[in-house]
Amino acid sequence: MVANPSIAIDAMGGDDGPATMVAGAALALDRDPSLKFLLYGDETQVTAELDAHPRLKAAATLCHAEDAIAGTEKPSQAIRRAKTTSMGMAIGAVKDDRAHAALSAGNTGALMAMSKLALRTMSGIDRPALAALLPTLGDNDVVMLDLGANTECDAQNLVQFAVMGSAYARTVLELDKPRVKILNIGTEELKGTDELKEAAGMLREADYLPMQFGGFTEGDKLARGDVDVVVCDGFSGNIALKTAEGTARFVTDLLRRAFTSSLRSKAGFALSRPALHLLKVHLDPNNHNGAVFLGLNGLVVKSHGSANAKGVANAIRVAASMVRNDITQRITEDLDNFRAHAFSDETAE
Amino acid sequence: MVANPSIAIDAMGGDDGPATMVAGAALALDRDPSLKFLLYGDETQVTAELDAHPRLKAAATLCHAEDAIAGTEKPSQAIRRAKTTSMGMAIGAVKDDRAHAALSAGNTGALMAMSKLALRTMSGIDRPALAALLPTLGDNDVVMLDLGANTECDAQNLVQFAVMGSAYARTVLELDKPRVKILNIGTEELKGTDELKEAAGMLREADYLPMQFGGFTEGDKLARGDVDVVVCDGFSGNIALKTAEGTARFVTDLLRRAFTSSLRSKAGFALSRPALHLLKVHLDPNNHNGAVFLGLNGLVVKSHGSANAKGVANAIRVAASMVRNDITQRITEDLDNFRAHAFSDETAE
Repeated sequence: MVANPSIAIDAMGGDDGPATMVAGAALALDRDPSLKFLLYGDETQVTAELDAHPRLKAAATLCHAEDAIAGTEKPSQAIRRAKTTSMGMAIGAVKDDRAHAALSAGNTGALMAMSKLALRTMSGIDRPALAALLPTLGDNDVVMLDLGANTECDAQNLVQFAVMGSAYARTVLELDKPRVKILNIGTEELKGTDELKEAAGMLREADYLPMQFGGFTEGDKLARGDVDVVVCDGFSGNIALKTAEGTARFVTDLLRRAFTSSLRSKAGFALSRPALHLLKVHLDPNNHNGAVFLGLNGLVVKSHGSANAKGVANAIRVAASMVRNDITQRITEDLDNFRAHAFSDETAE
Repeated sequence: MVANPSIAIDAMGGDDGPATMVAGAALALDRDPSLKFLLYGDETQVTAELDAHPRLKAAATLCHAEDAIAGTEKPSQAIRRAKTTSMGMAIGAVKDDRAHAALSAGNTGALMAMSKLALRTMSGIDRPALAALLPTLGDNDVVMLDLGANTECDAQNLVQFAVMGSAYARTVLELDKPRVKILNIGTEELKGTDELKEAAGMLREADYLPMQFGGFTEGDKLARGDVDVVVCDGFSGNIALKTAEGTARFVTDLLRRAFTSSLRSKAGFALSRPALHLLKVHLDPNNHNGAVFLGLNGLVVKSHGSANAKGVANAIRVAASMVRNDITQRITEDLDNFRAHAFSDETAE
């Protein structure tokens, strides 16, 4: 096990740039003093922020990057500037084994394209996937993948997503045998596309894998807390994730309107405030921050662009947990296991 | 314009069967005394319910149906029993011009299969679609289609859904030129599948149609109230609809937990209750009830299985509004217009 996970941080990404990224790293170091940091960004700007965090300043290595990737930049343009940008240099540190994981709150498409190009897809995985955590009514968050890296997916891709997602749930959520389901438009075996049915068939037979496969689930059951990993193609996953975000905001907006609609309800709100604070904490994206690209030869974590220091610190915790538990090795073992069984099935026939 | 819309009701469908369906029809008749009803179901059970609603009893025709479709029944089995079941007989009344529209709160798959077989797809439409209304922060609900009738769709299908959805928004939401967008995983023109990009291209050029086409939208923007019709394939639509339902329930469950977590918050809740009631009304599915199958030679409306009498009455209002505004004729005109332009473009090339 890695004793001192070293995290390469794109200090220029995110809505607030260095201020939030540096404050987040400082908070993460307070919580876990064994961490090491490489900070990539404009030397003057990052140094100015580091002055407010002497402990991090002493523990971190600052690497000057001339340039940064803009939020609106096209991935195809961004990849040409890998070597001079804070994002590209942070990923490069993982490639060159100078860091165990990279973290950025910048342009998702650019980060995905750069990471794929620099780190390459790991053996046994056809396509990397973007995974994230969503809040539930249960004891733990639910892992969902893919969330937009692959618009269309075949059955093999989906099976690989299930393997990667359960390795993620085992490390970050600390579950022994995560409960895995495939997102579909019904729970009956005959529902959905051929790809989904084929993937479900393969996972049903793979009972030697460290997961409990439970068939299909639907969009209205994601937050119930009775599943730990939800597998889907990147199109459906992106639609579901954004619809969930939009609906949560919609309901809380309605709630705000309701509470401010009269003097009486304002008084009620004041009285209920401590309890409603719990609702806010539960829904706050900063508490579920840290989407990861799974399936590459190296770890890359994406923080929300709007995350605050606490959100960045949570994303760093996710990265460190994956490093310590060597998630890449776990995925490799599960895939080897899957292929060995699939091969012995074929020869037995 | 039809003065007295006649609605054929499957009195046996829905979680509570005849009690709710008859009470819903009675409420709809109170609100709109010009309506006529044909009630299909078990004579004894339906008569017992009608005794509580003398006005409806006088205005409705009761038709005995020996049998009913179960909620779990497969569509392939259900279609063989069209002639003896309350659902099949209600659809048959539309086919035989004895009713202007059919309404059922029963098995959606069976209703869709039976309707398609009995009424056939209208000329110019390749595939019918399921459309429904979702609440927003804006002045009106948003129409979304397809919600599950077609797992995979090509560009032509999506264009036809846009035409049908805007005809629906013009009749039921009473909008002149509905704002139409296609659901995608980003708003940039290059995002998404080829089918989506091709459909967007065709709609962008069809500026003579009675709609304002606005390109792509995403899952987090559905409830904002800045779009009237959202077009998608049935798979994505079903995922988005159910995720929205599930998330709204999740947030209100968290809210309930928060309010009951202490004596103080309970008092706050009591004080805020009238204002929170507005939130409940806004989110209540009964106020947005009435999904419709668009694109058939006849109107079929699906009520939520769990709808109460008010929900059923709202679904009946939707059906009557489509009958009065002759939505089928509107769709036919728009499609003819679209094909005439497409044809003149081709000959001009």
